[in-house]
Amino acid sequence: MANQSHTASTKRGRPGYEREELLSICVRAFNEYGYEATSMGVLADALGITKSAIYHHVKSKEEILEYALNRALVSLEEVFDAAESLEDSNPAEAVEFVTRQTVYALVEQFDNVTLLLRLRGNSQVETEALERRRELTNRLSALVKTAQEAKEIRQDISDRTIARLIFGMINSLATWYRPERGENVEKLADAVVQMAFDGMADSTATSTTAR
Amino acid sequence: MANQSHTASTKRGRPGYEREELLSICVRAFNEYGYEATSMGVLADALGITKSAIYHHVKSKEEILEYALNRALVSLEEVFDAAESLEDSNPAEAVEFVTRQTVYALVEQFDNVTLLLRLRGNSQVETEALERRRELTNRLSALVKTAQEAKEIRQDISDRTIARLIFGMINSLATWYRPERGENVEKLADAVVQMAFDGMADSTATSTTAR
Repeated sequence: MANQSHTASTKRGRPGYEREELLSICVRAFNEYGYEATSMGVLADALGITKSAIYHHVKSKEEILEYALNRALVSLEEVFDAAESLEDSNPAEAVEFVTRQTVYALVEQFDNVTLLLRLRGNSQVETEALERRRELTNRLSALVKTAQEAKEIRQDISDRTIARLIFGMINSLATWYRPERGENVEKLADAVVQMAFDGMADSTATSTTAR
Repeated sequence: MANQSHTASTKRGRPGYEREELLSICVRAFNEYGYEATSMGVLADALGITKSAIYHHVKSKEEILEYALNRALVSLEEVFDAAESLEDSNPAEAVEFVTRQTVYALVEQFDNVTLLLRLRGNSQVETEALERRRELTNRLSALVKTAQEAKEIRQDISDRTIARLIFGMINSLATWYRPERGENVEKLADAVVQMAFDGMADSTATSTTAR
């Protein structure tokens, strides 16, 4: 998986990496083998460089983890910052904005967000990232609640359950979306927004189900 | 987490386990530490018995994994078997049946399904389980497609995307539902069905969003 597409500046016959590229290859290795199971030796193999060459870029495996999780979280937090400062929009539009933009953030930061979603919280770095992740659910719940109070969306399901189910749909992309296939992200975001707001029922259909 | 609630039949001063109970404690350990990171020694600690006492019940760690994954998959497969043999129901009702019953199956087989959803596919047992898991998505996609052809549900999102987003909502329960809190499962299943079919939009609301 390593050193085929990067722009190598060879040094003593070994490929050299820009920091960004090195980090993204490491994160893909974490996602493939699991963070715990990925030693610096495994990273060196994936990169095709020596362990000491990695230490030229980063102090430790955990520094890579922390960097990747922060990148994912900042992207997601920025979505909420933007939603909360939207002007001339009603509360339901803020929920729609977050739903759509979170899909884009997940696709843009695919490997970093995938790593974030697989965390178990076995270290302080992970525990802190999980705390920031929970805060995102709190912020979506708050937006949903505001829209419910404005009677713009249904009030018979709790704001927290709605927020979790919306994130459930979006986060599932980490398990089935394949960025390399170049699928249309806008169409994907549309589908998630449509399912989140209107579900799959055909509002023009006349059949009655048991609901 | 071990030997506090089990019905111990002590043997030479060590707690004895029924096979079922031993397996469920092992699966919880897999979910807590990760399957790869959970050695037979870790399992022995979790159970409060010796490694050789575990071998009295199972041949290997992988046998426990295989058993747990099979339990989860059989429960989920049974939901589809039942849906596909429903009589006097329209296609949309079959989709609703699967959505609701899959929530129940996940809650009933919580630890086993959680283990299934975290699989990476690093061994033959895992690869085969992932194959059976993919087949569930195929079966839901087929039910969705039939309902789309009958014009009972929306046709502007592909059957596969709808199936994946529904499973995304349901599977997210493994990350946030807490069985020990004894929340009302029926209410939870209702919420998932309502979101899957009708989304969060308040059909009685008059406000217009940008959709």
